[in-house]
Amino acid sequence: VSVTEPAGFEAAGIACGIKESGAPDLALVATGDRRSAAAAGVFTTNRVAAAPVQISRKHLEDGRAAAIVLNSGNANAATGEPGRTDALQMCEQVGDALTIRPADVLVCSTGLIGIPLTMTPITRGIPLLAEELRGDAEGAGAAAGAILTTDTVPKTSTVQFPLDRGATATVGSIAKGAAMLQPAMATMLAVLTTDAAVEPDALHVALEGAVDVSFNSMSVDGCTSTNDTVLVLANGVVGNRPIGTGGPAFHALAAALREVCVDLAEQMAGDAEGATKFARIVVRGARSLDDARRAARAVANSQLVQCSLYGCDPYWGRVLSELGASGASMDAEQVDIAYNGIIVCRDGIAAKHDAVALEEEMGGREIEIVCDLHRGGNEAGILTTDLTHAYIDENMGTS
Amino acid sequence: VSVTEPAGFEAAGIACGIKESGAPDLALVATGDRRSAAAAGVFTTNRVAAAPVQISRKHLEDGRAAAIVLNSGNANAATGEPGRTDALQMCEQVGDALTIRPADVLVCSTGLIGIPLTMTPITRGIPLLAEELRGDAEGAGAAAGAILTTDTVPKTSTVQFPLDRGATATVGSIAKGAAMLQPAMATMLAVLTTDAAVEPDALHVALEGAVDVSFNSMSVDGCTSTNDTVLVLANGVVGNRPIGTGGPAFHALAAALREVCVDLAEQMAGDAEGATKFARIVVRGARSLDDARRAARAVANSQLVQCSLYGCDPYWGRVLSELGASGASMDAEQVDIAYNGIIVCRDGIAAKHDAVALEEEMGGREIEIVCDLHRGGNEAGILTTDLTHAYIDENMGTS
Repeated sequence: VSVTEPAGFEAAGIACGIKESGAPDLALVATGDRRSAAAAGVFTTNRVAAAPVQISRKHLEDGRAAAIVLNSGNANAATGEPGRTDALQMCEQVGDALTIRPADVLVCSTGLIGIPLTMTPITRGIPLLAEELRGDAEGAGAAAGAILTTDTVPKTSTVQFPLDRGATATVGSIAKGAAMLQPAMATMLAVLTTDAAVEPDALHVALEGAVDVSFNSMSVDGCTSTNDTVLVLANGVVGNRPIGTGGPAFHALAAALREVCVDLAEQMAGDAEGATKFARIVVRGARSLDDARRAARAVANSQLVQCSLYGCDPYWGRVLSELGASGASMDAEQVDIAYNGIIVCRDGIAAKHDAVALEEEMGGREIEIVCDLHRGGNEAGILTTDLTHAYIDENMGTS
Repeated sequence: VSVTEPAGFEAAGIACGIKESGAPDLALVATGDRRSAAAAGVFTTNRVAAAPVQISRKHLEDGRAAAIVLNSGNANAATGEPGRTDALQMCEQVGDALTIRPADVLVCSTGLIGIPLTMTPITRGIPLLAEELRGDAEGAGAAAGAILTTDTVPKTSTVQFPLDRGATATVGSIAKGAAMLQPAMATMLAVLTTDAAVEPDALHVALEGAVDVSFNSMSVDGCTSTNDTVLVLANGVVGNRPIGTGGPAFHALAAALREVCVDLAEQMAGDAEGATKFARIVVRGARSLDDARRAARAVANSQLVQCSLYGCDPYWGRVLSELGASGASMDAEQVDIAYNGIIVCRDGIAAKHDAVALEEEMGGREIEIVCDLHRGGNEAGILTTDLTHAYIDENMGTS
């Protein structure tokens, strides 16, 4: 039941007519009592932020929101002032339908960049959508389906976490595929809900930590979308004392958000249509955390490494070359590289290994490449996929 | 006649047996009188520098060299201390064959990474190669052919430039395809020769400037090879007063090296087997030169932009998004984007344009994408290609 699993949330999804295919394209998540909840968001770092990102950032300034409206099929990005007017209008229309302040509504869009939003189907759709709001699995499922673009399956995740005095809270979520995985659509969106009471600042800190180790640790093509958005609402229905930063309840909340985000990120990577392999690049022994991340990202983003994965070829020379090009502090002749635990490069040169066992590993769907720089104690991991003919097919055209 | 066009140079190329195919794989360029010439080199910035790069850097410390030996088929990279011994041995063997000091020999390798060099064919080949040295077109052509890997045609370029008092000097060159274009082979090599007398420091400054605007302004997959090397020898046979930094002769030399390097770089891009399009990304109006370069490189390296080019799709939203993700200072709503002179985005939003004319332009082999940030007076351009099925086919496996 995903986003409605925590008490006091409702959701809905409909086909309003943005997508020519007639598939569902408009979703709504709201508090059951329409009162504003503590809210936090993490947005794309791209300087070309889409209109809905700009509006949602503003509406989050007070750390509160009561509803989130999401459309798929059009990103409302690179649409200038008219785009902001459209995004704001979506908030106003949801405000009218639910009798809440427009400033308590957040908005997300995903789809093509540079095409003005057609407001007519949205304006017609929002009141219908509001009527469909339900606190059950059906409402949550409809919302999860209506935010999809090229995803083949909805992504949802829920987890429980302990509060003080034996009480329990729940985190629920829906998400759609990442920029990196369905790049033609160029956006990853996730909406999280929890029935715990949380201070907005603490909610933001916990969400940032969760995004950092999940969505920000994935990379397929290194592209950062104009629309990437992760939002969380905490309605406090459980009645706990609001969670601030620090203390066991905060750490339990943070762990729960992390668990949900990592689960969603893995579902996104696993649903990469173009991909045949799902690879985790780990760099350890780095002098600094920044070095570890930089090096892991360089390997994960490498078209050459991605092509090798597609060809089931453990060509570690390319991995070593990308580590060297990353700028991370290293001595090439101290580097070890292993594919699924089989060391193929030791001290920067070819290492004897069981070629038959390696070939078998390379044929599998999951590959872990571990690179040890032997320069310090820092480690970072990043998810990626292979670069395939299907990736190119998907991204050659916009239609 | 390329590398032997300047007076006082000889060249040769043979098949010694490194490549299983039996294709030519060993080349030599030397001064005609075997005396050391002023020499300079620009090498990969990858921290995993191949053994021949390490040895050549050392042999260039005195700014002089008399010969350059190059092999194709094996990069002698990620080969550790044995690799350095092999590279040094190649210099010693050339030294023996030409009766020159091993320290006056430079060495380049290109091919697969991580495989120890098989020295037997090289040791047998070098004396034969030395005997083949000729100052004519045949020698130069043989050398140009023996350094190729997946290139379909040899790359050569020559140009003349004026010295003081009406005299003229010549620059000649041979090169092989770039890392970015034939990535499985992962290396670009270029050898330049000139019969002008030049101070080693001035030669180095001029070469760095030429490489900066040519080979360093190309990008297909953003990967930096372990072996990239550009070398120049200036033997002074013309008898001019040695050119120092500054003054008209220096500027004429610098311009000549630039012209040759740009010509070679364009030949490399044009010979990218996997590519169907040859694109120049220009970013102008940037606040700083660094911003212009960073933004142009972000667009050029984008798999999404490259896929769009392959699909003849002028999807400027991706270009704008990459500019925004590059970190360059910009206001999205001031950016203009044009494909082959047709403005498709003005002030960050879709601009009305002649769709038929644009479609015609997108079908061509050469596309220029000009992005104007309207933030200052700095401009940078970078060459790239599209991302194609053939690119993946070439890079799926190492054999």
